[in-house]
Amino acid sequence: MSDSPRRYAQSAALFARAAAVVPGGIYGHMAPTLMVPGESPYFAARSEGARYWDADGNEFLDFLCGYGPNLLGYGHPEVEEAAARQARDANCLNHPTARFVELAERMTALVDFAAWAVFGKNGADLTTWAIQVAREHTGRKKILRVAGAYHGAHAWCSPGHGGWIEEDRAHIHTFPWNDLDAFRDFVRRHPGEVAGVITTAWHHPNFSPAELPKPGFFAGLVETCRAEGIVFILDDVRSGFRLHHGGSHRFFPGCEPDLAVYCKALANGHPISAAVGRSFLRKAAARVFLTGSYWNSAVPMAAALKTLEVAERDDAVGRIAKLGARFRAGLHAAAARHGIAASLSGHDSMPNWNFADDPNSYRAQAFACEAMRRGVFFHPHHNWFLCAAHTEADIDHAVAVADAVFAAMNSDAVVPAEH
Amino acid sequence: MSDSPRRYAQSAALFARAAAVVPGGIYGHMAPTLMVPGESPYFAARSEGARYWDADGNEFLDFLCGYGPNLLGYGHPEVEEAAARQARDANCLNHPTARFVELAERMTALVDFAAWAVFGKNGADLTTWAIQVAREHTGRKKILRVAGAYHGAHAWCSPGHGGWIEEDRAHIHTFPWNDLDAFRDFVRRHPGEVAGVITTAWHHPNFSPAELPKPGFFAGLVETCRAEGIVFILDDVRSGFRLHHGGSHRFFPGCEPDLAVYCKALANGHPISAAVGRSFLRKAAARVFLTGSYWNSAVPMAAALKTLEVAERDDAVGRIAKLGARFRAGLHAAAARHGIAASLSGHDSMPNWNFADDPNSYRAQAFACEAMRRGVFFHPHHNWFLCAAHTEADIDHAVAVADAVFAAMNSDAVVPAEH
Repeated sequence: MSDSPRRYAQSAALFARAAAVVPGGIYGHMAPTLMVPGESPYFAARSEGARYWDADGNEFLDFLCGYGPNLLGYGHPEVEEAAARQARDANCLNHPTARFVELAERMTALVDFAAWAVFGKNGADLTTWAIQVAREHTGRKKILRVAGAYHGAHAWCSPGHGGWIEEDRAHIHTFPWNDLDAFRDFVRRHPGEVAGVITTAWHHPNFSPAELPKPGFFAGLVETCRAEGIVFILDDVRSGFRLHHGGSHRFFPGCEPDLAVYCKALANGHPISAAVGRSFLRKAAARVFLTGSYWNSAVPMAAALKTLEVAERDDAVGRIAKLGARFRAGLHAAAARHGIAASLSGHDSMPNWNFADDPNSYRAQAFACEAMRRGVFFHPHHNWFLCAAHTEADIDHAVAVADAVFAAMNSDAVVPAEH
Repeated sequence: MSDSPRRYAQSAALFARAAAVVPGGIYGHMAPTLMVPGESPYFAARSEGARYWDADGNEFLDFLCGYGPNLLGYGHPEVEEAAARQARDANCLNHPTARFVELAERMTALVDFAAWAVFGKNGADLTTWAIQVAREHTGRKKILRVAGAYHGAHAWCSPGHGGWIEEDRAHIHTFPWNDLDAFRDFVRRHPGEVAGVITTAWHHPNFSPAELPKPGFFAGLVETCRAEGIVFILDDVRSGFRLHHGGSHRFFPGCEPDLAVYCKALANGHPISAAVGRSFLRKAAARVFLTGSYWNSAVPMAAALKTLEVAERDDAVGRIAKLGARFRAGLHAAAARHGIAASLSGHDSMPNWNFADDPNSYRAQAFACEAMRRGVFFHPHHNWFLCAAHTEADIDHAVAVADAVFAAMNSDAVVPAEH
């Protein structure tokens, strides 16, 4: 891996500058410690379609899509034109614009159970607000969530160790994904105390394989929620509008949330999140104060309207699903060809890729590192994302690169990076 | 007020549509109930400089500036060009861009005590993170804040009644603005328990006059913080870069925060917030997980860099201060001329305007309503904002309109709206 310092010289130089003026240099989900330290780009410079160029000018065929916001392709011309046109008129004002109304109407038409919509800037703005709405509606305190699921960086759910106190989680309780008995048991032991349950549409933790819902999991969860007056919140921040144009709950039979939160794919990278809910939650929703300086800004709303329109018109979901199936088949065949024990998990549009017998993620890091050297960006620990700008040729190229990396891994030419 | 239905017909029609699909129609700080219900625009359509046009095409000379983000003028050409240029290259990617490093370097150079910077999307993203950093650094739980101050819509500080539980505020305590004795007394009664104190640079509540810091207030507060190891957090979200190019603490002698949060004026309406801190907080800052889907996006960072550059080059602060002094003198003279007991309070760049003997805010609402009819937007209950795009002629025109409204109020031609 001796060529890496040259390959990522600008990234390294920028990181040295960042480390002087930013705690940790780069924080949060883009921190280099979560990628391949020393062996992946740290800074990007340009993007187009399904490709980006890092600070050193290295080109990557991208399978992370900005961690999800890139649904239609970076810099999609129609979305950018809609945003630019709106920017020429107005953006951040004393009042909302008509875009606010149009987008709320669009969201409530799009999501089958939605009687109302609200908007924020981050996913966590609204996952946090959603548990508040559940508490306000029920007059109860307890929130159930799935162990290991990500709902944002707020104190009640942050995966980080610092900055939260026991009171922040005094009424936050976890149960294992797909474990309906554990969920029901908790509810039974706390009658009249559970305000809400929040889950993703399927379980996509970092560092381990994704798990789809077992048959009956959501139906059983919903049955208990209805019987006990518990609000079911779907955190569709990461997968919303990638599995189904009407929201990911439509993809999984029995998944019938009362409130859902969307974010990443909503505006193809423009900053906006949304929550929608059933009619019975409208009063509680109106009582939980919700606002931010830029939350009614018109440009991201114009971008969201255009993104939803283009995604539906061009059947982005269907296109990505087809590409994803091709990708899965190709990767599995390549791995089998080289006797590599590894597999894709989760939904094809945003799969996890995990090696068997890889307790320290060395193989995942070596694989990602070697693919990056060959111009394909696979994240070693996080689920990948496909977008509508990927082509069949892109998928085939990525599979060919994976095939070459598997060969190199078998030949012992690939040594895990030191840690 | 019989002409209002016609004047605001489009706003009313959009609001009726919004009310069908959004809890409360418009929520948060832009809710019509916080303006002049039925007598002010609810939706905006276009903006330029210090003016905007509502959904009915009514033109307003604006003294709210989008609640603060408009520092240089709506649609400032240099800021919009910098944003558009960055958007053509890249925005929301797998990594930050060089803009991230440049902005962190700029913020730490600009703010005298800042050793590091981080970025979010909302003010509350970072006021909340700041109290977490104080807790992480000290290993203590208690946070002191000023009663009636606004720090965002999160559960620990929301001004709303709904959606928070007692545990959210178990270690949040208030003291009255400017009451150093109360602050010291609390600290004395809770030795080794106070993690941090958060204040604004001066007190600017809604519905009542603003209060500047008493001489010695900040110096005394800082002295106690230093002696007791308490982190002093300045919430400069609303006023940052309007009073002083280096942050509002520079304007008030003795105000020496350990950590400060900026937002509204930072990027002239593009969505970004920032926190900066002293070196001793760097480790704690790195331990409190901080991230969001769009937080490293390059466009708002490019807009912030250009906004800070133009503001300093054109001395936006000095220009606004001069306009503010002219405004104060003109408004006070007009009120005196008509025997109206009312006055400006707070800093001239973002003053509060309050009538004496106005317990139900009827006079404030009547004043704002009549000014709107004459094409000038004054908020009835919230502090106003001046921007660098205001001219002396704009100020003189606004004073003339206020003069005419005072005359009408005295003639009994103005009847408070029914509530």
